[in-house]
Amino acid sequence: MNDEMLWLNTPPAEPDAQAAHAAEARQARLTKPPGALGRLEAIAIRLAALQGRERPRIEGVRIAVFAGDHGVAAQGVSAFPQAVTAEMIKNFARGGAAINVLARALDAELEVIDLGTAVDTGDPPGVIGQPLGPGTADFTREPAMSRHQLAGALAAGRHAAERARLDGASLFIGGEMGIGNTTAAAALGCALLGLSPAELAGPGTGLDAEGVARKAAVIEAGLARHREHLDDPLEALRRLGGFEIAALAGADLACAHMGLPVLVDGFIATAAALAAARLCPGAERWFLFSHASAEPGHRALLEALGAEPLLDLGMRLGEGSGAAVAIPLLRLACALHDEMVTFEEAGVSEKAP
Amino acid sequence: MNDEMLWLNTPPAEPDAQAAHAAEARQARLTKPPGALGRLEAIAIRLAALQGRERPRIEGVRIAVFAGDHGVAAQGVSAFPQAVTAEMIKNFARGGAAINVLARALDAELEVIDLGTAVDTGDPPGVIGQPLGPGTADFTREPAMSRHQLAGALAAGRHAAERARLDGASLFIGGEMGIGNTTAAAALGCALLGLSPAELAGPGTGLDAEGVARKAAVIEAGLARHREHLDDPLEALRRLGGFEIAALAGADLACAHMGLPVLVDGFIATAAALAAARLCPGAERWFLFSHASAEPGHRALLEALGAEPLLDLGMRLGEGSGAAVAIPLLRLACALHDEMVTFEEAGVSEKAP
Repeated sequence: MNDEMLWLNTPPAEPDAQAAHAAEARQARLTKPPGALGRLEAIAIRLAALQGRERPRIEGVRIAVFAGDHGVAAQGVSAFPQAVTAEMIKNFARGGAAINVLARALDAELEVIDLGTAVDTGDPPGVIGQPLGPGTADFTREPAMSRHQLAGALAAGRHAAERARLDGASLFIGGEMGIGNTTAAAALGCALLGLSPAELAGPGTGLDAEGVARKAAVIEAGLARHREHLDDPLEALRRLGGFEIAALAGADLACAHMGLPVLVDGFIATAAALAAARLCPGAERWFLFSHASAEPGHRALLEALGAEPLLDLGMRLGEGSGAAVAIPLLRLACALHDEMVTFEEAGVSEKAP
Repeated sequence: MNDEMLWLNTPPAEPDAQAAHAAEARQARLTKPPGALGRLEAIAIRLAALQGRERPRIEGVRIAVFAGDHGVAAQGVSAFPQAVTAEMIKNFARGGAAINVLARALDAELEVIDLGTAVDTGDPPGVIGQPLGPGTADFTREPAMSRHQLAGALAAGRHAAERARLDGASLFIGGEMGIGNTTAAAALGCALLGLSPAELAGPGTGLDAEGVARKAAVIEAGLARHREHLDDPLEALRRLGGFEIAALAGADLACAHMGLPVLVDGFIATAAALAAARLCPGAERWFLFSHASAEPGHRALLEALGAEPLLDLGMRLGEGSGAAVAIPLLRLACALHDEMVTFEEAGVSEKAP
């Protein structure tokens, strides 16, 4: 590990067990049958632990979308041409993409970080340019990233998390855009979990069965090429991941270090969260899982993290969109926890003993 | 059927197939892989059909909570004393219950309609009093409602739906409160679907296994007493239902007549929606299903309606709370559908053919 990555060794912050207990006791006194709000109760208690206060609040939400291209796209693993990564960065800059609409509707702050694309974006205003190269290298031939690129991607994520914290965010969402990135995320997942490519390769943006089989073969080739180096999660991330995937992992780690809760999006974000949890055991205590993606391999990644996502809406867009859609659940859980009155305050009879 | 119930025979309004097709075509042009927003796409298309416009909007949301007591509570079918119905009506009036918090947080208008309780509420300000008696009769001994009470409960629901429409609501949610009402809803469901009490009786607000078995036996006794009259859904509703359950069914029917979409809550609201669909086939085309309740019998009711609820959060509170929590999904689906730009507008490359 080079010096520029020593920050990865910081231990994660500790959730506040006392605040969680106080929140749990409060839930039991609110005017409802015990447990009747289901997972909304668990969310409030979990956020109490993560925010260190009996009554948590979702104040500011930062959505950081990391974009980058993938050398492995040359192997024909996506239904869309690679130019779409740059085109979508421009779409983000103009406010026309799904995550722009969601951020506006949900009053969340959106940042877009361009980590390097194959086609020039023209550096649109409002996009944070931190290019690490014209996309990663093709992992079937060589490591996707150099050590320096990996360090840069991780740091880009860390800096986004630190900006969120400085700006007073109480929740961080990492999103991504990058043609080919379900291939990189699946390869990384296979390396971290010892799964076969057939278990994690899926249609992504819309491959047919033949395309999925080709994608699995490409992942297999990548795993074969790098096999001797994949026991180390950092090397697995460098060799098989992508700029945006490493940035997501870096952001997740920095959030865990600072004690800033992360609402994790779908397949790619979960692969990054898994890498973060392997790099820094305990980091996952800061991760809330928003939704089950339609990408079939997502389930295996979630299971490996012991995660039960809140939503299952068949979404598979990325950009942080699934996590954004779950924001209202967190806000409503906090509002119910904070504003409902207790049996005592309302003079309502409790359950018979 | 008495004259005062002739309005039930009104045919349901027709959804607008042309608006749905236009919305579907628009979804295919937005800057995302086709289908990548999953059920949010289907929601937007469905709302387009129900609102008769390519770009639907959730403008005003009315939540009407109907409350009433149940004679069958005397059989010991609830974990809470019957006084809680009146106490919770007072809690609603003071703004301290879950549905108050949710309505405020979601900018929805909340109405509470008191249809008759065993214990006096003192007619708190802000509650619409339309009492039909001090609760229903015990259905193990006699019909829960007289014909006149049934007509009154159905009309109370209809009037609530009409007020919502007059006030410009674009979405109606019916909630309920009534100690003993999972027993009545389960009995009604058994009658409408030919299921056994063991299939629909559940813990409700918190019965143990012994309590659930007793509840199933009570439902069995009710079904046996009224067996010869249960082929007619209106008679099943009268003999086994409750004031608030009939009001929900009346509201659902009036919404279907007027073409006002209903976002259906959990177990009890779904039993009422099922009754409405049996009374007026086609009414269910106006019903969206918000969440899967933790009450185990809910699945069977949803299946009978071909419904796939949006959320599965283990909620089992009633009051309309599960439907309220799903409101943001509808709003976000509409915002995405309306505000995302198309491939053409953004100059983004489409999927390879």
